[in-house]
Amino acid sequence: MNFRFGQKSLFSTSSRQNNALRALVYHKNGNPAEVMRAQTFEPLGKPGPSQVRVKLLLSPINPADINVIEGVYPDAPILRSDLVPKAGASSSLGYDREKPVFVGGNEAIGVVTDAGTAVQEFKAGDRVIFDKSQLGAWATYQNLEAAQLAKVDEDISDVAAATMRINPPTALLMLRSFTTLQPGDWIIQNGANSAVGQAVIQIAAALGVNTINLVRNRPDINNLMIRLHALGATRVLTYNELADKAMKQEVKKWTNGKSIKLGLNCVGGKDTTTMTGYLGKDAHLVSYGAMSKSPISLPTSYFIFKNLTCHGYWQSKWYNDHSKADRLGVYAEIMDLIRQKKVSYAARVTEP
Amino acid sequence: MNFRFGQKSLFSTSSRQNNALRALVYHKNGNPAEVMRAQTFEPLGKPGPSQVRVKLLLSPINPADINVIEGVYPDAPILRSDLVPKAGASSSLGYDREKPVFVGGNEAIGVVTDAGTAVQEFKAGDRVIFDKSQLGAWATYQNLEAAQLAKVDEDISDVAAATMRINPPTALLMLRSFTTLQPGDWIIQNGANSAVGQAVIQIAAALGVNTINLVRNRPDINNLMIRLHALGATRVLTYNELADKAMKQEVKKWTNGKSIKLGLNCVGGKDTTTMTGYLGKDAHLVSYGAMSKSPISLPTSYFIFKNLTCHGYWQSKWYNDHSKADRLGVYAEIMDLIRQKKVSYAARVTEP
Repeated sequence: MNFRFGQKSLFSTSSRQNNALRALVYHKNGNPAEVMRAQTFEPLGKPGPSQVRVKLLLSPINPADINVIEGVYPDAPILRSDLVPKAGASSSLGYDREKPVFVGGNEAIGVVTDAGTAVQEFKAGDRVIFDKSQLGAWATYQNLEAAQLAKVDEDISDVAAATMRINPPTALLMLRSFTTLQPGDWIIQNGANSAVGQAVIQIAAALGVNTINLVRNRPDINNLMIRLHALGATRVLTYNELADKAMKQEVKKWTNGKSIKLGLNCVGGKDTTTMTGYLGKDAHLVSYGAMSKSPISLPTSYFIFKNLTCHGYWQSKWYNDHSKADRLGVYAEIMDLIRQKKVSYAARVTEP
Repeated sequence: MNFRFGQKSLFSTSSRQNNALRALVYHKNGNPAEVMRAQTFEPLGKPGPSQVRVKLLLSPINPADINVIEGVYPDAPILRSDLVPKAGASSSLGYDREKPVFVGGNEAIGVVTDAGTAVQEFKAGDRVIFDKSQLGAWATYQNLEAAQLAKVDEDISDVAAATMRINPPTALLMLRSFTTLQPGDWIIQNGANSAVGQAVIQIAAALGVNTINLVRNRPDINNLMIRLHALGATRVLTYNELADKAMKQEVKKWTNGKSIKLGLNCVGGKDTTTMTGYLGKDAHLVSYGAMSKSPISLPTSYFIFKNLTCHGYWQSKWYNDHSKADRLGVYAEIMDLIRQKKVSYAARVTEP
């Protein structure tokens, strides 16, 4: 089964073979189409005393998951020597059954089917997300340390929960960590149609913050604009429109001369230079992605005379740097936004 | 008279005409060689009740002073309509005696010759620096508000005092404002032979902080290296040496694998990209100049995965943003560093 959901593909990992373990695995980094294999492994033993068995329900594919497989991402899953290929199962396409493997995927919703004797916080039937990066989401089930999991409230759908750990917190925390935004303030972002970009639009709208949203021109640009406006976008512009010099005056009219305090960048390259030129004094440019693979190039005067500060944001680092209580606090906040329909993607779910 | 002092030219503004006002002035922005004029004005009246008359003793030429005259700097002196060209004085080179003028220069040491009736904090003979930007330093004397001045301690030489307001505080505050440096830590800077660069070397050495100092290659490079080492530089490298890939390993040996926490940039362009590649995780790149006039171009991964933060630093802004007490505190700190010979340029003073 294959789901399409917003910017992401989700695949259902439910299976008729409840006992055997199926997973999407790779031995070595490279082009996912070449190095990934779907493989059946011998059933795992019962979870250890501090572990729970999690049946994975839905897992998205985030762009970063591809980078992890390619080996161009600083995070990597642990090498799994505990998985034993099922006797007689196909070892097609050159897959070497003798070698340890990595299990792909970083984000998932699962349900607890069995808990170790020392586990108090989870029981069978609890729905959970991973509270640690790169545990291996693309599997039918996993035995995991209870400490590596967090509970999902009952009123949060599987589809919402499967994608709540990375993109919505990235949006929420970027809006909050670098500058103090008041209702009526303005921000600008590129890649506005990305999963994070859509969450930024929605959360900013919930805060009363105005957004200028940059997207690539495309044949169905009007539909995209309508969709982003429906999410709460104040303005949507293509990069071409932004580069037009007359646009500076136009934007000043929109903002009533108020300076734009925050820029969010997931693209890089010359369009990001242009976008940064729209920021006001003492503004912050936060980069969380690099879809163009081009560097960020900025005149020095932006730093010295406009007092621009440039930061990076990486949700994995935020989780690593914060306590369990802080992490659970963010999950609770995101679940609250989902519950209030303040974060709700225009889901494009494709079922087979 | 003309003084050369470190990176700067200083000219003595003493004059035999103690009564008339001589100043370097311009009507309009442009190439200093074309728009600047030395002009004699009618003597100024007595200082007002809250004013003092300051006889200017020495004024440096900072690179930014040239940018102010060119009109490419965000700071500008006020237009002076109070200056009346002296009757009969030459109006050579097309200078228009009827138009208001700007007086050039931003930094100076002067001596109080006369104080208004309401002035309590200064008396004749007190040596002072400007406590406000762009008051017009290139004049024989000025009547200035007492509130715009700060006293210089008696044991600070004229030469040291004339250049204490801009460059040494820039060095001190950049070292302190963005990260906490401990003895044994490492920083890297380009333009290390600039006035700020030399102050950075000296203040860092006083703090026990190691410096890697980047300079352009030149015929007398060995002499420059010896001079910077004598100031306290830990290492000096040319940009060519830095760009050599083997240098990364060499620098790791110097730092014993310790990560470089702060980069100071007054150049921009590709050498700054290379320099930034030497910074460790969670480092800060601070730009305070742009001698190459090229932008700063950095891979997005530096921001996201190395958690680099890029800032600008502008001493004029720092002064504007801080209280009189804070400003006096910084002057006192710099005078203390001068007194302890921790900030002492290798002065190249040229007298006629």
